[in-house]
Amino acid sequence: MQLNLVIKNGTIVTAENVYQADIGIRGEKIVAIADNLSGEREIDATGKLVTPGAIDVHVHHQMPLPSGVISADDFFTGTRAAAYGGTTTIIDFVAAEPEESLLDALAARQAEAKDRVVIDYGLHMTITPTDIAKLDQLPAVVEAGCPTFKLYMAYGFRLKDGELLQALDAVKQVNGLPIVHAENWDVICLMIAQNLAVGRTEPRWHPRSRPAVMEGEAVGRVIDMAALVGTPVYIFHVSCDDAVERIAAARRQGLRVFGETCPQYLLLTDAAYEEPGLAGTLPVCAPPLRSLTDQARLWTALGRNELQVVSTDHCPFSSADKALGLDDFSRIPGGVPSIESRFALMYTYGVLANCFSLKRWVRMCCTAPARLFGLTHKGVIAIGYDADLVVFDPNKQTILSTDLLHENVDWTPYTGFEVTGWPAVTISRGEVIVEDGTFYGTAGRGKFVERQLSM
Amino acid sequence: MQLNLVIKNGTIVTAENVYQADIGIRGEKIVAIADNLSGEREIDATGKLVTPGAIDVHVHHQMPLPSGVISADDFFTGTRAAAYGGTTTIIDFVAAEPEESLLDALAARQAEAKDRVVIDYGLHMTITPTDIAKLDQLPAVVEAGCPTFKLYMAYGFRLKDGELLQALDAVKQVNGLPIVHAENWDVICLMIAQNLAVGRTEPRWHPRSRPAVMEGEAVGRVIDMAALVGTPVYIFHVSCDDAVERIAAARRQGLRVFGETCPQYLLLTDAAYEEPGLAGTLPVCAPPLRSLTDQARLWTALGRNELQVVSTDHCPFSSADKALGLDDFSRIPGGVPSIESRFALMYTYGVLANCFSLKRWVRMCCTAPARLFGLTHKGVIAIGYDADLVVFDPNKQTILSTDLLHENVDWTPYTGFEVTGWPAVTISRGEVIVEDGTFYGTAGRGKFVERQLSM
Amino acid sequence: MQLNLVIKNGTIVTAENVYQADIGIRGEKIVAIADNLSGEREIDATGKLVTPGAIDVHVHHQMPLPSGVISADDFFTGTRAAAYGGTTTIIDFVAAEPEESLLDALAARQAEAKDRVVIDYGLHMTITPTDIAKLDQLPAVVEAGCPTFKLYMAYGFRLKDGELLQALDAVKQVNGLPIVHAENWDVICLMIAQNLAVGRTEPRWHPRSRPAVMEGEAVGRVIDMAALVGTPVYIFHVSCDDAVERIAAARRQGLRVFGETCPQYLLLTDAAYEEPGLAGTLPVCAPPLRSLTDQARLWTALGRNELQVVSTDHCPFSSADKALGLDDFSRIPGGVPSIESRFALMYTYGVLANCFSLKRWVRMCCTAPARLFGLTHKGVIAIGYDADLVVFDPNKQTILSTDLLHENVDWTPYTGFEVTGWPAVTISRGEVIVEDGTFYGTAGRGKFVERQLSM
Amino acid sequence: MQLNLVIKNGTIVTAENVYQADIGIRGEKIVAIADNLSGEREIDATGKLVTPGAIDVHVHHQMPLPSGVISADDFFTGTRAAAYGGTTTIIDFVAAEPEESLLDALAARQAEAKDRVVIDYGLHMTITPTDIAKLDQLPAVVEAGCPTFKLYMAYGFRLKDGELLQALDAVKQVNGLPIVHAENWDVICLMIAQNLAVGRTEPRWHPRSRPAVMEGEAVGRVIDMAALVGTPVYIFHVSCDDAVERIAAARRQGLRVFGETCPQYLLLTDAAYEEPGLAGTLPVCAPPLRSLTDQARLWTALGRNELQVVSTDHCPFSSADKALGLDDFSRIPGGVPSIESRFALMYTYGVLANCFSLKRWVRMCCTAPARLFGLTHKGVIAIGYDADLVVFDPNKQTILSTDLLHENVDWTPYTGFEVTGWPAVTISRGEVIVEDGTFYGTAGRGKFVERQLSM
Repeated sequence: MQLNLVIKNGTIVTAENVYQADIGIRGEKIVAIADNLSGEREIDATGKLVTPGAIDVHVHHQMPLPSGVISADDFFTGTRAAAYGGTTTIIDFVAAEPEESLLDALAARQAEAKDRVVIDYGLHMTITPTDIAKLDQLPAVVEAGCPTFKLYMAYGFRLKDGELLQALDAVKQVNGLPIVHAENWDVICLMIAQNLAVGRTEPRWHPRSRPAVMEGEAVGRVIDMAALVGTPVYIFHVSCDDAVERIAAARRQGLRVFGETCPQYLLLTDAAYEEPGLAGTLPVCAPPLRSLTDQARLWTALGRNELQVVSTDHCPFSSADKALGLDDFSRIPGGVPSIESRFALMYTYGVLANCFSLKRWVRMCCTAPARLFGLTHKGVIAIGYDADLVVFDPNKQTILSTDLLHENVDWTPYTGFEVTGWPAVTISRGEVIVEDGTFYGTAGRGKFVERQLSM
Repeated sequence: MQLNLVIKNGTIVTAENVYQADIGIRGEKIVAIADNLSGEREIDATGKLVTPGAIDVHVHHQMPLPSGVISADDFFTGTRAAAYGGTTTIIDFVAAEPEESLLDALAARQAEAKDRVVIDYGLHMTITPTDIAKLDQLPAVVEAGCPTFKLYMAYGFRLKDGELLQALDAVKQVNGLPIVHAENWDVICLMIAQNLAVGRTEPRWHPRSRPAVMEGEAVGRVIDMAALVGTPVYIFHVSCDDAVERIAAARRQGLRVFGETCPQYLLLTDAAYEEPGLAGTLPVCAPPLRSLTDQARLWTALGRNELQVVSTDHCPFSSADKALGLDDFSRIPGGVPSIESRFALMYTYGVLANCFSLKRWVRMCCTAPARLFGLTHKGVIAIGYDADLVVFDPNKQTILSTDLLHENVDWTPYTGFEVTGWPAVTISRGEVIVEDGTFYGTAGRGKFVERQLSM
Repeated sequence: MQLNLVIKNGTIVTAENVYQADIGIRGEKIVAIADNLSGEREIDATGKLVTPGAIDVHVHHQMPLPSGVISADDFFTGTRAAAYGGTTTIIDFVAAEPEESLLDALAARQAEAKDRVVIDYGLHMTITPTDIAKLDQLPAVVEAGCPTFKLYMAYGFRLKDGELLQALDAVKQVNGLPIVHAENWDVICLMIAQNLAVGRTEPRWHPRSRPAVMEGEAVGRVIDMAALVGTPVYIFHVSCDDAVERIAAARRQGLRVFGETCPQYLLLTDAAYEEPGLAGTLPVCAPPLRSLTDQARLWTALGRNELQVVSTDHCPFSSADKALGLDDFSRIPGGVPSIESRFALMYTYGVLANCFSLKRWVRMCCTAPARLFGLTHKGVIAIGYDADLVVFDPNKQTILSTDLLHENVDWTPYTGFEVTGWPAVTISRGEVIVEDGTFYGTAGRGKFVERQLSM
Repeated sequence: MQLNLVIKNGTIVTAENVYQADIGIRGEKIVAIADNLSGEREIDATGKLVTPGAIDVHVHHQMPLPSGVISADDFFTGTRAAAYGGTTTIIDFVAAEPEESLLDALAARQAEAKDRVVIDYGLHMTITPTDIAKLDQLPAVVEAGCPTFKLYMAYGFRLKDGELLQALDAVKQVNGLPIVHAENWDVICLMIAQNLAVGRTEPRWHPRSRPAVMEGEAVGRVIDMAALVGTPVYIFHVSCDDAVERIAAARRQGLRVFGETCPQYLLLTDAAYEEPGLAGTLPVCAPPLRSLTDQARLWTALGRNELQVVSTDHCPFSSADKALGLDDFSRIPGGVPSIESRFALMYTYGVLANCFSLKRWVRMCCTAPARLFGLTHKGVIAIGYDADLVVFDPNKQTILSTDLLHENVDWTPYTGFEVTGWPAVTISRGEVIVEDGTFYGTAGRGKFVERQLSM
């Protein structure tokens, strides 16, 4: 058995099992898991965990906001940071211009990524109001490997309920998966306006303009509509108990409803917005950070499989960009970075804190994302799968800071967070792209993954 | 003790008690309840029930639709029919023109009613989008005796969510009660358009364009918003299990959420829309009639106090008007009559069918409406209350038909319904206005009731 | 209209209504409620509330424990104290000796009460294991006016599950109402033995030997069995959230399950058992006092009608008797007094604290007990009902103490409790038995009430 | 890489994954999973599924009843039948005599099994009332590899609640897992006696003497007690919705509660007891077969992970033995066979009927049983695990009958059931023990597995 690369003596962690074995790689694939393998190159993983490469299904690279501000990580800096943190696949977004066909938009977005991506990537197709007229293009989009569709219930380009129903129905027709940003935009607009009108301009009015109960309302509404249509639905960045309860209740009734949360909601709270000056603007994101009670509920939701995935919603903006909203919280570009630290943060604050097991850690960060989003050759350590792997050093002590991280942004909400455990080696399709803190990958080596759902 | 009118030997039924006593009336008031009264005039109620006059908090007299069609009962014919059926107070609606002040609109509506009403009446103030700018007029409206505000989530003049929140908040500021027509208009518009586009024009597509789950969604949404604001809320014409469940869940959490249903939802089903030709158009109303399962759930909801009131949503349109939508179900004027038969229907199909007790019958049709809507001197048989009373013959056998009924409309959905029990005498503020099938009242004798909430 | 007694100018409070009127009494009955009555004797109730006499469905007078200790109030001292506190009817218990017929036991217990009772009384028939052989006597017991049956799931004379089912079934056959003391005796015995075995003898081990979850378990168990049999069931002295939840869940399913709690569970907590020496022994009762969280839940349960009645479980033992268990908490006679203060405590801590309304206060202390337990002529202010009435001074300030109270026991758990509102006049069947702190009643004037259920 | 046995070209199905690979076995262990293995012996699994050997955690071999009747399969015939059906590990039971130590009983039971077992086996230690005095022996029993303890709430040797609590507490102290037969024995005894007393002796009175609601009650009770103690608990043979609901509710609260059901509850109903004569006696088991509604609920419970395991409760009795109860249903030996057909039945009626996925099939029949019961080297296809494997032919058509099956009993409830899919090869610790319908194993080759829990 000719093997190009062997990971020896590690403890393999999958969503289902923890065991000792060597992993043999030929070309880009895992071809052997056995007890005593040898190959051209061998990596000694003694004392280390070997996991599937982490998958981040919710990232925004070089994304322009209507205001003209662009998210700070491009496809190169972002995916390189991802690789450092053990993430070997991302799914970003594409949105068409009003006059543009969905396939043209896809091609354009692929062109932006092509020469920059370090790791494999997929794209969710966004459906905005101007795309309702293009719903007949959905089969072609699915055919092109984008079977997941982002539907916004917030922001100016949100879908109103009738449009939302049309979109859900069209996605169902192509057996796609709708993924939803669920907040009640009408209410948010009103509350922002009311707050600004009385001079409440500081970041602390950001969470107060986006109440948790109305996130729950929106989640419940789209679940009701998905039930009406008969389609599964996946809820992005669940931040609060109200939203969890809607998802959990739907799941108990047997509906195919799924949800994710993100490190910021698990580790930070809305107290962060009380900081004076620039500091309070930095963690602005939507939905906003919530109360400690909501935070606690998210952890139990992960433990009970009421939520299935931890993604990042990585969408960094520089301090300078954030400062644009110093006098008006509604103008702060929304988004926080965590593409690099997610996998390690979940290990430290999830596994080591006994919130969930090693297996669930892998399930939430690797396997479930692959399964739900049609990455059929990823997220699993098994024969025939892509050799996307992480050798994870469970003892490495780190204190997070922008010095240590490789995200292209001058701040991180996790400064000072102590983490135990960090990727020692990141392997993408059989190629070592990060080892012991050194990046060996190249821009453009990543490939677009044509995803295929199997629900 | 000088008494003008005494009801002797009847069985008094209140929301709380069933007992034998005479009732003594002086002028417009109940002044004595005792065991052997005599007065200038005596009505022998031996073998009969004596109840408070029924109260119907949801009626639409001489209401113009945007299409120009007007509901068929005016304030005279409708309140006369109400009186025949044992109803002694109604609450109708007023809505202002865009340029009109709310108080002007109120005065104009009172002018329409003034010379016509046979029984006492109140008015709910409607808040449409153009009234959002007039929310500072609400204190004056409450002062004028209209503390309840109709908010539509459906129809062209619906409130969008931001407006709805503003309205809820404003109603809360004046300690008013918001009353809500809850359906998801966006979804309905889409589904109507989709159905019409493929030639589905018959009335059977009416319920299929207004799914129960989206009524539940809208009910849940406004409850969430009311919870956010901190106001009680009352849900109109609950038609389905989905909506009941939202209300029941909110009440279990201690929220002040109330709901009503109507005879049409308790006694008819959406099978009625399958009738060919004109027959299928007649029972079109919104929300639509639902399934037998939904119907059954409404009865248990009444039994368990998950819903508190039975009103009518009386809004009759003639067969000729209904025929306007023969080729397009969305053009059928929506509404059914039951202002005359509600009290007797609930006795036959509620009390005699053992769905609820005599006391609950009175509670749902008389006492709870008075309490919730601020009719502080009505709905109760006690000293000092208005002498609005019904001597109800529990043995009178009737088969409903337009011949028998006095509603100003050439059809009724209850044709052929057998009812046992019918009002023998209706007394309004001490005056016998119906006795043994003869009407003794006069147009204009009814008074506008300045209501005052006590929640 | 000849009236013997008139209560003038008071504010009448019933379960359903609050209004001004005079009440006219002829002989033992209420015969008139009107606006300007006069009679042989008139009591001016200006500024006062007039309520039905309070009813206490759960009291233990002169009850011998197996240890020989006897509860401290006999039928005279206890009912006199009750009268002082505005209670005009009690229901006590009878239990047969093994060889005694149920009717003989009833006659013997009536003989104990006959010359002592100051107010009217009923008796619940206890069914112990030795009475299982006597279940064919139940029709005669019901015929004799005792349609409610006490079933113990705790203590040596408890019914095991098979016996319990037999008893429930037999009670159902006679359309009686089973009333249950629900705790898991097996578990309690074990935990007491375990605690005593390691020297945990202080009163603080009393609540730790009777965990709330096992009260909930027992409540759930008997509800399941009642559902199996198809009988309603009433749960005595609910003390904790676990038990409330079982009752509430059953009621939501439409089961006829009812429950009461008592002032000790609403106003005290298990912190009382931490007191050193005798003080810690005094409030020992079963179920034990619970946590503050449980206490709070009971208040919400009353507000939401999850519990229907507040009774006392009045069962006082002297300090000397309590001291018998100083060295062994399991030997402390269990029970606390409140027969005199319940009505006023519920006014102060319920109504004035805005936990529930005046009407609900009367409902829980007067009307619901009468309805549920078949006191067909009591608990209501209406024509034809017994003239059992309280003129309640809502402004009277009192600080509770044994000096003030008339219970025959040298302590009260309510020493120092400030109450606002106290009965000024107590009337029993038309006779003023307490007025302005003076007792005018006589031992033996109370009558045994033959109760008749109407469920 | 030297391999003794290779399974080539199969589709590997694990609890988490379905993929193509070869499996390499050296000695008793899986040592390689790769894409092109070769070995001394090769089995071609083209077109077949390769699963972990099935695990049956609930079987009763050669078990004597108090009546003297002995279950029909001994350790040889039963485990051979198991092997035919793809089961490679069982867990049976041991119960000590009153005067016997638990370890002695264990040794004696192992002696019974030793020369007979064809596959590996473990034993649950039963705790009866006479074992309460031996609870200090539990650490030794755990040390000996029996960390799971059977607690009966039914039958003469049941634990009363106090004993049950002691047992749960003792099991918790050793970090063991209590597994519970939950029915309310007191109620059952009463109902049996009542039925027999009036001549209701036929098998149809068996389910009517063991109502579902009282199984639910018992399940709820032991969950409450486990919560009190703080121990996980596993519920045996869940048969009805009432029991599922208790388990599901506990799990939603985060309690570690687990449950299994069995083929008889998933595929048969209580209609079987209506059969005349012997036929009605055969399917008597406890809990009894239930309604079609209960059956449907069990399937959804498996799909939603409310129940985790499908075991058999295999406990066959011959027709002759069953006939002992022809005149008295309570004397019918309780138990049905399915040790051989479970795995295939679940494939046909679970996977092919779209009730659950291939992965869940393996999870419920193989992986979850291993995990929950401490079979640390079984239930998984991964390196280092026991080479317990099934090559499953998914297309094999079979009609079940006693002719086809190898269980030592002259009837089966599954006669005539059509199954699609059957084990072609069964491998136990690297040894092919069944291939194409031929048994190659030997009595006594199975080993006692010292189990170790990891919860």
